Amino acid sequence: MTQSFDIAVIGATGTVGETLVQILEERDFPVGSLHLLASSESAGHSVPFRGKNLRVREVDEFDFSKVQLVFFAAGPAVTLSFASRATAAGCSLIDLSGALPADQAPQVVPEANAHVLVGMKKPFQVSSPSPSATTLAVVLAPLLGIIDLQRINLTASLAVSAQGREAVTELARQTAELLNVRPLEPSFFDRQMAFNLLAQVGKPDEQGHTLLEKRLVREVRQVMALPSLKISVTCIQAPVFFGDSYSVTLQACDEVDLAQVNAALEDAPGIELVEAGDYPTAVGDAVGQDVVYVGRVRRGIDDPSELNLWLTSDNVRKGAALNAVQVAELLIKDLS
Amino acid sequence: MTQSFDIAVIGATGTVGETLVQILEERDFPVGSLHLLASSESAGHSVPFRGKNLRVREVDEFDFSKVQLVFFAAGPAVTLSFASRATAAGCSLIDLSGALPADQAPQVVPEANAHVLVGMKKPFQVSSPSPSATTLAVVLAPLLGIIDLQRINLTASLAVSAQGREAVTELARQTAELLNVRPLEPSFFDRQMAFNLLAQVGKPDEQGHTLLEKRLVREVRQVMALPSLKISVTCIQAPVFFGDSYSVTLQACDEVDLAQVNAALEDAPGIELVEAGDYPTAVGDAVGQDVVYVGRVRRGIDDPSELNLWLTSDNVRKGAALNAVQVAELLIKDLS
Ligand SMILES: NC(=O)c1ccc[n+]([C@@H]2O[C@H](COP(=O)([O-])OP(=O)(O)OC[C@H]3O[C@@H](n4cnc5c(N)ncnc54)[C@H](OP(=O)(O)O)[C@@H]3O)[C@@H](O)[C@H]2O)c1
Ligand SMILES: NC(=O)c1ccc[n+]([C@@H]2O[C@H](COP(=O)([O-])OP(=O)(O)OC[C@H]3O[C@@H](n4cnc5c(N)ncnc54)[C@H](OP(=O)(O)O)[C@@H]3O)[C@@H](O)[C@H]2O)c1
Repeated sequence: MTQSFDIAVIGATGTVGETLVQILEERDFPVGSLHLLASSESAGHSVPFRGKNLRVREVDEFDFSKVQLVFFAAGPAVTLSFASRATAAGCSLIDLSGALPADQAPQVVPEANAHVLVGMKKPFQVSSPSPSATTLAVVLAPLLGIIDLQRINLTASLAVSAQGREAVTELARQTAELLNVRPLEPSFFDRQMAFNLLAQVGKPDEQGHTLLEKRLVREVRQVMALPSLKISVTCIQAPVFFGDSYSVTLQACDEVDLAQVNAALEDAPGIELVEAGDYPTAVGDAVGQDVVYVGRVRRGIDDPSELNLWLTSDNVRKGAALNAVQVAELLIKDLS
Repeated sequence: MTQSFDIAVIGATGTVGETLVQILEERDFPVGSLHLLASSESAGHSVPFRGKNLRVREVDEFDFSKVQLVFFAAGPAVTLSFASRATAAGCSLIDLSGALPADQAPQVVPEANAHVLVGMKKPFQVSSPSPSATTLAVVLAPLLGIIDLQRINLTASLAVSAQGREAVTELARQTAELLNVRPLEPSFFDRQMAFNLLAQVGKPDEQGHTLLEKRLVREVRQVMALPSLKISVTCIQAPVFFGDSYSVTLQACDEVDLAQVNAALEDAPGIELVEAGDYPTAVGDAVGQDVVYVGRVRRGIDDPSELNLWLTSDNVRKGAALNAVQVAELLIKDLS
């Protein structure tokens, strides 16, 4: 007899939430009853799960004592409003919004730091990091043992779906208007997103860093347990619907052994290394897949202590929903 | 009386060549007769210049002794075939193809190393660097005196027009097919370019570096007279028609003085610094403009010796045609 668990997904009608429900089904997660929650706006809608249409309900009225685990995928405000209600009812939670501090709900990427779950007290509270931190952590995990890492330099080109449904609709609309030579009236993005790159995602602070960039640095340091690792990061918005791409330079102290790097990436869980000479793309490879794609593995021009990589992953799936479900899979043996 | 010069443009029907002819007119370059040259394919076509339509002729039949200066904007093979014929006829040349070695035709970006033109022997032979090297040089020039530069890390997101007319047509065609939910058949690019990012431009060598990346490193080192400057570079192809964008990290030895950096960028020729908090884009700012736009000027998160910048410039104009004309403007006083 397999044990099953009663589960709630908050934000079940959203980009991440919908994928999360799909993944629970695909991976045959031992779900007993599934409660789909959202705002009053989509309460009453239905979402398919195991051949049935499940009704979406309002989170405000939900009784958390009905479930053992809840996924928070509805934004930081919703997490901050309901997390303590959930834990007070004895319910464990996995948060995808980044709202909870690391000492309350540590960031976990199973390929990199599953060990922090060992001995954790119930009800469990875990954060699933931003897609950028998740992707980077999956790839750093097999490399840390073989390169003496000094500094990471990263340009993350994010898909518009990183900003939810509205951003996806807006890129499609802008593109159609431009192709039909109609005047462009930006709405969700404050300027032309189609056939353009936006140099920042969200407002920068006084020092010029965006929240997303600071979050990435904080999360990578925490997940990799390297609190003073130097990371330079620029997150830009690309006119891509799904799938983030990363141009990464790892600066090591010593010469990088490429054969060792390739072997480690080849063997590591959660990674698909493409052939030398080839490279993966968001649309052609990563989207809909459960792994981070890695290509363009090379040392620096004239600098053998530099390792350059190109990464791409499905921001909604591998970067978010799947990572959260992988965490849940590790938790369930202690959940009941 | 102003002196005027007889000039030829090879590749006059191309992306760069057409813009070059426009710029000669816009800047009132002292052109006597203008000879527009291309392959047999477009011989007979005409291109407007100063209110007249000039006939394009085949380069094979051209008598170089008719002109004092020729711009080569038709690819490396054409430069290699005709450069020595031009100089044998006493004609000076500016090459935009990157085909000539630096000891024969040094790379020049007027804002950065105009001094190499001083005392050069006639007929002059000068190279206009790749758009990436040109853009970077314009921005490094005012900074080198105030930061102690150790290393550059750069992700260059190139517009498809970097690969000429066919690439521009292909991005438009792919986008239209996708929006109309028709099957995509990539031709110029070997995979989906619309709504995607391609991690390399051109074939990589055994070490994984593309020609464009190696050329950029070589050219920046030569123009800045820093032969052993460390540069890590990734050139990617973005679904953008015109305008290249650059995510740049300059690593210094000492703490970077941001006020000094901003003041230097503000005063420097060829640069438009956008307000703090804002950022420039290819489409919204750079395209059609004569300057490199600079934004997101910031130090590292926790690393004051790191300077991060976002640059964007019109690859065809500021990155190529305009730079070549600026070089010509410096040469003409000694040309006759
Ligand atoms: N998209 C990504 O790539 C990604 C990746 C990792 C993490 N995340 C994070 O995941 C969360 C959801 O992102 P998303 O992209 O899925 O956004 P989205 O597509 O805009 O969906 C938002 C979801 O949250 C629900 N919601 C909004 N306000 C609510 C409220 N007051 N009470 C209850 N439910 C509410 C929405 O329900 P209604 O239908 O009722 O409005 C919807 O189900 C965010 O915190 C985001 O930062 C996103
Ligand atoms: N596009 C950029 O952003 C950029 C920037 C800097 C430098 N460049 C360099 O500038 C050069 C031209 O690039 P482009 O983008 O302008 O290319 P393009 O749009 O494809 O135009 C190529 C031009 O070269 C001519 N041409 C081709 N083969 C020829 C031959 N055998 N003999 C004479 N003319 C010939 C073409 O004439 P037909 O009409 O007769 O074919 C056309 O005028 C290349 O070396 C490129 O690397 C380009």
